[in-house]
Amino acid sequence: MGNNLKNIKLVIQYEGTKYQGWQRQESTGNTIQSKLESIFKKMTGEEVEINGSGRTDSGVHAYGQVANVMLATDLSAKEIMEYANQYLPEDIAIIKATEVNERFHARLNAKGKKYVYRVKNTSIPNVFERRYTYEFPLSLNLDEMQKAANMLVGTHDFKAFCSKNKVKKSTIRTIESIKIERVADEVRFTYTGNGFLYHMVRIITGTLLEIGSGQRKADEITEILEKGLRENAGPLVPGKGLTLLEVFY
Amino acid sequence: MGNNLKNIKLVIQYEGTKYQGWQRQESTGNTIQSKLESIFKKMTGEEVEINGSGRTDSGVHAYGQVANVMLATDLSAKEIMEYANQYLPEDIAIIKATEVNERFHARLNAKGKKYVYRVKNTSIPNVFERRYTYEFPLSLNLDEMQKAANMLVGTHDFKAFCSKNKVKKSTIRTIESIKIERVADEVRFTYTGNGFLYHMVRIITGTLLEIGSGQRKADEITEILEKGLRENAGPLVPGKGLTLLEVFY
Repeated sequence: MGNNLKNIKLVIQYEGTKYQGWQRQESTGNTIQSKLESIFKKMTGEEVEINGSGRTDSGVHAYGQVANVMLATDLSAKEIMEYANQYLPEDIAIIKATEVNERFHARLNAKGKKYVYRVKNTSIPNVFERRYTYEFPLSLNLDEMQKAANMLVGTHDFKAFCSKNKVKKSTIRTIESIKIERVADEVRFTYTGNGFLYHMVRIITGTLLEIGSGQRKADEITEILEKGLRENAGPLVPGKGLTLLEVFY
Repeated sequence: MGNNLKNIKLVIQYEGTKYQGWQRQESTGNTIQSKLESIFKKMTGEEVEINGSGRTDSGVHAYGQVANVMLATDLSAKEIMEYANQYLPEDIAIIKATEVNERFHARLNAKGKKYVYRVKNTSIPNVFERRYTYEFPLSLNLDEMQKAANMLVGTHDFKAFCSKNKVKKSTIRTIESIKIERVADEVRFTYTGNGFLYHMVRIITGTLLEIGSGQRKADEITEILEKGLRENAGPLVPGKGLTLLEVFY
């Protein structure tokens, strides 16, 4: 008689600094998914596969990544969380675990996501925030950036704002909101939407920073969206400034 | 002809995790003072000695430690800061440098200090705050702690609240305020005073946590102060929860 198979929904927090992103890779065990899977394998004695809500890239952080995993265990969700946190490195933690319906799937059921991109808008160092912020010390016009951001809100083909992917899939997405605010020496970009393409948040942020620093005009957004060419959009800003805050279901 | 000798006041930020505290030690170069001095030696070609406002212990952080240093250089204060930040490890940074009167001394002229001790009051991990908080998951009565804290405010002999020091000096100090507040999952203890004895903030916090968790009564403070015996006060809580916020002049 085996144990009950349980579907466990996990909320996972991680500092991405030392990892090659979320997704399991054949070339390295140094991903967040791999770390979690190896602990659950140890716990159950079986191969397990975790479904994340989506990937995060190398260096990107998560305050509330969501995943689900089918586990053959008699342990409760709370006990599973405690077991895993005991073995996880200190820069990865499960902050919530709940047993859910067997049909719940963290990626397929995700209805939306919220990200923040943090820009340190000064050249004065901040040792406490250095892992979570990208330094961009040029003067920034928040009104211009917000004007451009508002042109991106809504349902659009964001082809110009994503890095090339091997898989040909729809590049249409809906951004619900982009909030840009100054918090002390930082400018924070908070994105909410039904889903984001590969590198989309970081390319949009790079484009908005060019607009905010006067290197291009807010009005260019319309043409960038229309033409759908990656080279018309701004640069990909570094992963370390990005944090996945929340996944909505 | 040598360069002008300038007295430079520095505001220094550091994450103390990897260091053996502020103070230069013969046994190790791994202190914040040593790191700074070796960079200024490189810059000027001379031995230099930095005067910190006071020591911080192993693992303790600083948001605004203050120091002064006499430097034979033609560089401006700003250029000195930029030079140093180029060579400092990323967990130490000079965030302000100003040329001051030759009589300014960071330790002797310090009028007061402000510290915060951060307690993570839950057993749920927080990977982003793990380096700056001490986990104490027991339920805490903030009113009782504040009552006890108020008995410590004022001018007292804090002998019971300091670790033994070789040097026999006065153990009388004035605490101006102790503010205890809940911030999300944390309880923060903010101390302002004219100076603090060796381990004083951490022993007071350890004592307040015992009071807050019902292990002892607020009223015991009077007797602890009167008797002046270290063994009557609470435990020394870990350095990593402590941050030197500001030094007043």
